[in-house]
Amino acid sequence: MSRPVRFQTLLRDPTSAARRGRLITPHGTVETPAFMPVGTQATVKGITPDHLAASGTVMLLANTYHLALRPGEDVVARMGGLHGFMGWDGPILTDSGGFQVFSLAARSRLSEGGVAFRSHIDGRLLELTPERAIAIQEALGADITMCLDHCPALPATKEAVADAVGRTVHWAGRCRDAHTRPDQALFGIVQGGHHADLRAECAEALIKLDFDGFAVGGVSVGESREQVREALAVTTHHLPEDRPRYLMGVGRPRDILDAVATGIDLFDCVLPTRNGRNATCLTDRGLVKLRNASHRLDPGPIEDGCPCLACCNFSRAYLRHLFLAKEMLGPILASIHNVTYLHRLTRRIRQAITEGRFVPLRAEVLEALGP
Amino acid sequence: MSRPVRFQTLLRDPTSAARRGRLITPHGTVETPAFMPVGTQATVKGITPDHLAASGTVMLLANTYHLALRPGEDVVARMGGLHGFMGWDGPILTDSGGFQVFSLAARSRLSEGGVAFRSHIDGRLLELTPERAIAIQEALGADITMCLDHCPALPATKEAVADAVGRTVHWAGRCRDAHTRPDQALFGIVQGGHHADLRAECAEALIKLDFDGFAVGGVSVGESREQVREALAVTTHHLPEDRPRYLMGVGRPRDILDAVATGIDLFDCVLPTRNGRNATCLTDRGLVKLRNASHRLDPGPIEDGCPCLACCNFSRAYLRHLFLAKEMLGPILASIHNVTYLHRLTRRIRQAITEGRFVPLRAEVLEALGP
Repeated sequence: MSRPVRFQTLLRDPTSAARRGRLITPHGTVETPAFMPVGTQATVKGITPDHLAASGTVMLLANTYHLALRPGEDVVARMGGLHGFMGWDGPILTDSGGFQVFSLAARSRLSEGGVAFRSHIDGRLLELTPERAIAIQEALGADITMCLDHCPALPATKEAVADAVGRTVHWAGRCRDAHTRPDQALFGIVQGGHHADLRAECAEALIKLDFDGFAVGGVSVGESREQVREALAVTTHHLPEDRPRYLMGVGRPRDILDAVATGIDLFDCVLPTRNGRNATCLTDRGLVKLRNASHRLDPGPIEDGCPCLACCNFSRAYLRHLFLAKEMLGPILASIHNVTYLHRLTRRIRQAITEGRFVPLRAEVLEALGP
Repeated sequence: MSRPVRFQTLLRDPTSAARRGRLITPHGTVETPAFMPVGTQATVKGITPDHLAASGTVMLLANTYHLALRPGEDVVARMGGLHGFMGWDGPILTDSGGFQVFSLAARSRLSEGGVAFRSHIDGRLLELTPERAIAIQEALGADITMCLDHCPALPATKEAVADAVGRTVHWAGRCRDAHTRPDQALFGIVQGGHHADLRAECAEALIKLDFDGFAVGGVSVGESREQVREALAVTTHHLPEDRPRYLMGVGRPRDILDAVATGIDLFDCVLPTRNGRNATCLTDRGLVKLRNASHRLDPGPIEDGCPCLACCNFSRAYLRHLFLAKEMLGPILASIHNVTYLHRLTRRIRQAITEGRFVPLRAEVLEALGP
């Protein structure tokens, strides 16, 4: 069977589980490990598509929950799908909407069939089922779609996590059955919290369903860095070598480095744009807060050597002024810098894997980032 | 004496006072009639300099009042002046700050020496004098600077307007004496409301002071379109042919057409960006309001044939979604469209003057715009 997306493992790091790969989609090829900026409402906040491409973005993510509520997947479909609607010709991935239903919607109520919830925008009563999650994503038309999963709220008993794993596997089967578009890939999502046996059980069950790729969910919701690493290592150990692996919602530089070491290929996170809007910039030496008085007369860029639009053209003094004056250009430029930063980091990671020196690179970057 | 900016009249329209000119500044050449977007706080709101240049912007304006208050002209000067600070290599014009002192500041108090006022940001007590207006503008480092003028609040008696004219002329002399930078031009500002005799008197007095160019002030503050046209025609009739003429604060398409017909060369206005942030777009057929339900499934651009970033890449349906979802990209794209629109309009005006058909073009555009 020819798959809508194909994944090639180009190289394996000799001293970790890190791997250098290539994801081939109907809208282009993604060199992995790769970071995907988040375009929640069919726009990566504050960044025009030309600047997004210039920042190094190849593939991005959009949120099914938000787009189904507004403007509605029918509007997106009639405007040419997400690619046409948002003017992005590159690969796009949509999530299933499940995570947002559990975290954003007012009063969600779970059943074996799906989740009933009220819209956080207008209070409308709606239902998300595995079949509906697939139907919305087929209308949105992304290259990669996700199964509806159940990510339990934390803290949770092991029994509750096991229950969520059972539901996630059951829903994954229904999603696979509902999936019809031959040009869209479908990924399963491994849940199981920090319980190695539940993660393994979930992974094995999903592997039997033969998805085009596998995501790891529930690791960005409140667990410690150590727990995340352990859960990840266990999970990726079970996943097939020839399918892409996507760690959902992770985007801190140190977490990306940790996850790559366990064999993760894809990441997404709102961190670069959310931090950017808040005047906080990612750099190799940690976070730079542009509102600080120390930047008042600082003629230097956010980060020396950064090729982004902000760093090539503007001083920290100017960016500080923009934030203090509440000018839109501040969030725009800081977001562009942060997205560029994460793409540069993953590019260095890819290069290091290619050269067999990922582990030293990771140590070096973590050391410079500081505690 | 060699002037810091030179103005060449290339062609005169045979059936109106319109003229096709060229303004040569230390940072580049501006083909006139030309529109200048406003970068109040050293940024044209929501538009990166590369998109601003792509929209057709050659010269822009920044506001002395705002920049003196924040970040302070000393910061701008130490960061390389406005050109370096805001990353704009093209020509820049600064106003004197007077208009904002009278319109924005809390409790301004006028004397012959200048204006005392409280900052609208933090309530600090400050003073703007002709000498201080020039000193700030020399620190900001624009290509063209303006004299401090007195634009009286309307409605005003003729006596009050005459008083303001006297003060404006007196202050203009002090500005000329205070002006030291040989690489900056200084323009005088003609006041006089809708009184032909006061406009003429003001113009004659300023002409004797031999400014590099002349601005017409006080026409965007509450007078009717007919009164504005009359005041303008009287004023430009008195101004020397070989100096540029700048109509302050005017940017509606019909007002630009009217003003060009009286011989105006330069315009500035916050209209394109303010309207853009408010989802209102300028087109040849009048205003398009992007939030309207009629655009829900509209696959067309804001305006057919427009070469801007918004019109080349996005549908009205998408732009409507961005505004309803309160995404920054909506204001960004609508502002880019509106600035592009006014540059396209002035480009058509220049072309029409060159071809001796400005009057028919004006009639055609006004007809299409509707009432």
